Amino acid sequence: MSDSLAELRAKINAFVHERDWEQFHSPKNLAMAMIVEAAELVEHFQWDTLEDSYQLTPEKREQVSHELADTFVYLLRIAEVLKIDLLHAANAKILLSAKKYPVDKARGSNAKYTKYQEK
Amino acid sequence: MSDSLAELRAKINAFVHERDWEQFHSPKNLAMAMIVEAAELVEHFQWDTLEDSYQLTPEKREQVSHELADTFVYLLRIAEVLKIDLLHAANAKILLSAKKYPVDKARGSNAKYTKYQEK
Amino acid sequence: MSDSLAELRAKINAFVHERDWEQFHSPKNLAMAMIVEAAELVEHFQWDTLEDSYQLTPEKREQVSHELADTFVYLLRIAEVLKIDLLHAANAKILLSAKKYPVDKARGSNAKYTKYQEK
Amino acid sequence: MSDSLAELRAKINAFVHERDWEQFHSPKNLAMAMIVEAAELVEHFQWDTLEDSYQLTPEKREQVSHELADTFVYLLRIAEVLKIDLLHAANAKILLSAKKYPVDKARGSNAKYTKYQEK
Repeated sequence: MSDSLAELRAKINAFVHERDWEQFHSPKNLAMAMIVEAAELVEHFQWDTLEDSYQLTPEKREQVSHELADTFVYLLRIAEVLKIDLLHAANAKILLSAKKYPVDKARGSNAKYTKYQEK
Repeated sequence: MSDSLAELRAKINAFVHERDWEQFHSPKNLAMAMIVEAAELVEHFQWDTLEDSYQLTPEKREQVSHELADTFVYLLRIAEVLKIDLLHAANAKILLSAKKYPVDKARGSNAKYTKYQEK
Repeated sequence: MSDSLAELRAKINAFVHERDWEQFHSPKNLAMAMIVEAAELVEHFQWDTLEDSYQLTPEKREQVSHELADTFVYLLRIAEVLKIDLLHAANAKILLSAKKYPVDKARGSNAKYTKYQEK
Repeated sequence: MSDSLAELRAKINAFVHERDWEQFHSPKNLAMAMIVEAAELVEHFQWDTLEDSYQLTPEKREQVSHELADTFVYLLRIAEVLKIDLLHAANAKILLSAKKYPVDKARGSNAKYTKYQEK
């Protein structure tokens, strides 16, 4: 089984191409498809306490794993269609977040960064 | 800038750890955070036609890139916290989808696979 | 200030019509707009414990109130565009749910109804 | 069948109370449940063109009606638990939106109001 991101992207693209599904994969449609998968993940945890959400039965673990996979696949497709380098984008965003959430202010706090800026 | 998934995961984990944010990163909370980011992506396309959604101004392109990055970061965090191998999960899911959507039936169709099973 | 649902619907319809926004209000677009508002609500609670989510500062209370209002407005618009009677639909759904979740089995349980059916 | 909002709220509250489900209905959990329902609506339209999304088969119409109902029920529950008057909130929000989107600037435009403020 493939273990690289590049191989996964190529596999997904081939899957879509074989089925002639590019025609349905506009960014708008893919954004909808991705949030639907994200919601299927949310559904698994909606009635859980925070503590319970760490504890998955094997059955739930497999389902959660499928929802994560589906979200990931659509995320990769959107990036593909829009020619956005997801790894580059994530690395760039972390640099930005590091500025918005400096360690000394953010440590142990779940406040939004705008709270620091107000002060 | 890092270009591997393993490096990105390590970088995100360090970012979270430095801020002592693991305490907030229950699967339940992370699933909520991820769908919020997915929705910020949806917002960019909500009034677009399908055709327009391919056309991004440089400003919108950068914002979309940030939303994809944020979604990706939370996706990686959920996988991390639950010890789910995202690449493995995605590859396994594609095999499943290939069975649910055989090329001869799915080609050019946006019908849900349950439609084939009804027939 | 109006206190009836019918008046609210009429007011929203007039608001949309004055701005010539019916052209953007396809069910697809409205469904996207509604989930974006639902996510803005989720964002307010994403790092809260369950207990904390009951406690709103006046500022947060006002913001939450706005997100609920926005979700409601789009919900009413979708129903309007598709000519679905929301009150009727909700009443009908409650009857269905009462069958899916009989009191004796559902009492005090957060299990999905499919769990009963498996037994 | 009830046709008033107040009766619907009372019916939902009774439904929840009979099943002793108030314990699960924290604002956080309800916000998750509501977005899951909103996503089930999105799913119905994700591969549709804008035009197609107006055209529902009787079967799809019924399903869409159920998703709208479910979203509505959770919306009412959140408002109930937080003691927010949904009709009041919606009417207040429309007044705010009327200021953010003055007819002369917003007519026929799908731009976000922040676009006006930039000018």
